[in-house]
Amino acid sequence: MFATHLRCRDCQAQYDLKMMYACPKCGGLLEVEYDQANLLNPEHILHPDSDFYGLWKFHRMLPLKDTKNIVSLGEGDTPILRADRISQTWELPIDLYLKAEMLNPSGSFKDRPSTMAVSMAKELGHKAVVVASSGNASAAVASYAARAGIQCIVFIPKSTDPGKIVQAQSYGAKVFAVDGTFSDAYDMSMKCAVEYDFPNCTSTYVNPYTVEANKTVAYEIFYQLKGNVPDYITVPIGTGPLLAGTFKGFEELLAMGLITKLPKMIGVQAQQCMPIVRAFTDGSPVLAWQEPIHTIAGGIADPLDGYTKDGETTLKVIDLCSGAMVSLTEEEIKKSTDAVEQLIGLYSEPTGAVSVGAVEKLFHENVIPAGSSVVCLVTGHGFKFTKRSFSSPSVIHTLTDLTF
Amino acid sequence: MFATHLRCRDCQAQYDLKMMYACPKCGGLLEVEYDQANLLNPEHILHPDSDFYGLWKFHRMLPLKDTKNIVSLGEGDTPILRADRISQTWELPIDLYLKAEMLNPSGSFKDRPSTMAVSMAKELGHKAVVVASSGNASAAVASYAARAGIQCIVFIPKSTDPGKIVQAQSYGAKVFAVDGTFSDAYDMSMKCAVEYDFPNCTSTYVNPYTVEANKTVAYEIFYQLKGNVPDYITVPIGTGPLLAGTFKGFEELLAMGLITKLPKMIGVQAQQCMPIVRAFTDGSPVLAWQEPIHTIAGGIADPLDGYTKDGETTLKVIDLCSGAMVSLTEEEIKKSTDAVEQLIGLYSEPTGAVSVGAVEKLFHENVIPAGSSVVCLVTGHGFKFTKRSFSSPSVIHTLTDLTF
Ligand SMILES: [Zn+2]
Ligand SMILES: [Zn+2]
Repeated sequence: MFATHLRCRDCQAQYDLKMMYACPKCGGLLEVEYDQANLLNPEHILHPDSDFYGLWKFHRMLPLKDTKNIVSLGEGDTPILRADRISQTWELPIDLYLKAEMLNPSGSFKDRPSTMAVSMAKELGHKAVVVASSGNASAAVASYAARAGIQCIVFIPKSTDPGKIVQAQSYGAKVFAVDGTFSDAYDMSMKCAVEYDFPNCTSTYVNPYTVEANKTVAYEIFYQLKGNVPDYITVPIGTGPLLAGTFKGFEELLAMGLITKLPKMIGVQAQQCMPIVRAFTDGSPVLAWQEPIHTIAGGIADPLDGYTKDGETTLKVIDLCSGAMVSLTEEEIKKSTDAVEQLIGLYSEPTGAVSVGAVEKLFHENVIPAGSSVVCLVTGHGFKFTKRSFSSPSVIHTLTDLTF
Repeated sequence: MFATHLRCRDCQAQYDLKMMYACPKCGGLLEVEYDQANLLNPEHILHPDSDFYGLWKFHRMLPLKDTKNIVSLGEGDTPILRADRISQTWELPIDLYLKAEMLNPSGSFKDRPSTMAVSMAKELGHKAVVVASSGNASAAVASYAARAGIQCIVFIPKSTDPGKIVQAQSYGAKVFAVDGTFSDAYDMSMKCAVEYDFPNCTSTYVNPYTVEANKTVAYEIFYQLKGNVPDYITVPIGTGPLLAGTFKGFEELLAMGLITKLPKMIGVQAQQCMPIVRAFTDGSPVLAWQEPIHTIAGGIADPLDGYTKDGETTLKVIDLCSGAMVSLTEEEIKKSTDAVEQLIGLYSEPTGAVSVGAVEKLFHENVIPAGSSVVCLVTGHGFKFTKRSFSSPSVIHTLTDLTF
């Protein structure tokens, strides 16, 4: 592997490759830097290492020293599906694709950052990992910890519905309810990480290794679209590492000479909690979201309280690629979910489907022009959404009772 | 494609390739037959068609005339994972692998027969499909019907918990509750299939095309184990098409000269409903299971009422390969599920995990000898099991409240 050091995204100070969460000099977020001359070898993409599954085929592009430390459940290589039935039904003159990230092992895209984080934890010799999350991230980290035989410690706010932690608990994670808000749970995860030297695998930008795994989304799209770069990629975002990591992957492909343009990245939030959209629209700094939140897209309803810097990092990427941020109403989120399920056949949590509704909205707002190609990342499995309604089926006695 | 006709498994009568469910002469189950000379070309396996995803890479081995009729969600190519933490913890001197079939798009292995059945329905020009199931099969068929834009009609017994049909309904399936038992729902599905000419995609042996898709499990294992054939393959079974289809795939690989031995197939049932195990143990005919059923492995609790012939078909395969049938207690099923989740990191419904517990049992019964290699098919996602218990997490206020 060709990672050489951690670099502060703000003051550019450099540090050794170890477990660090912020620049000691300025508090900035850290990013993995590589020996670019050796990293940017097109062979790493054109001839990935077929001894490994899924995203780990591209291990030479990732910051792990020794492949024997890979902790894998077969994540990555998620299918990309043409979504003609949606573009036809919605009358969108757009070449539309869905990338089915919900088909990762624990049921969400969080398996990418989590396989990376837990593999790094194993390589660095840690015996436990921590994560602050009551959703997809805690399940993902817990699953890889189980695979590695490492303890997983999950912090959630006390108010969390206990049903949301059943998946993490099933993998054997130890869950603690923190008396306070999500921010308090997050603070506690960081205190625990520092006090006990347990890597914090929370999938914001805080763990500099996690975001690197999201680069593999770009490599896979490169393969799946046979080298064609989509004009736009739409991404459901809470803080944004999936969007940033995917874009970083495309930047690498460009630097290797494998592609000749970059996609425009579109971040999608729910109107009920859209701190990054608000900053994008107003041209203002990212502020924590203080308003009440009532959304079916809970997985991206991140108020960024205590880490608005994450939102700024994402906005820098949006700016760099001339992308955009957009938000959906609850009705639009519901419509998107129904379309993914009933027109494509993929079971999707509402959070994951917002990337699809964003395309219709931005087409009608003349942001995405006719004739564009768009890949929507659909990030979480339908099983994750437990508040579904169902209708009682008609009871029939004979064939003549049937009505279609 | 090289399919030539349907052949009766009992009287060997031949029929054209259309939608048929039983031999008009003798009532026997039908099987797809091929032009063997052209089918058994090792190139079809060694150089699968890379224009297609997952199991459809092997479309030349399957009974579909035109690849434009493929209805796919990216199913197949499920990961195979070494399960050393289980063999170590359980002290089994066995080379143990899990094949993660729950990672198919709708969350179970039923996506294999369903992608096949719905693709055939499309090719034959049908506008709707029917399925009798309140579990994984209805969800799977409904998802492919949604993908194809074909109506899906599901029949369930009236007593079914409505929560079990939410996934099928989310894909847009029309669900009817039949006033009676599962057998009555199945009968109604068949009446509807015949009356309206809607293919019955119920994943017993009734639809002769569905079982063919399960052959791809063998092709994938061949690749994933680099040509080594496991000594045993353990399979959770209700009726058994997955077991039979997997074995048929290995028979083809042997006939092609790609492998030099066949695996022994092990069918696994819950002691609470084990009509096929009972017939295997007693050397008696398969009889419908009449005893009350109380099991957490609901997906394989099939009493075979009205189609005991399916059990006989599976037993013939077991006999042919010198395999075995085995059943697990509820406690053993629970232990198997915990092991898959906590020692491997795969979320699994109890039904899907019985294949793992079977290995421990058969090792101690001297059926599987030390030094064997075993692949366990783990068939359904943990999300499918909705009756999980969880423990309320400890509430903490400061870091010192933490206990590990
Ligand atoms: Zn700094
Ligand atoms: Zn016959």
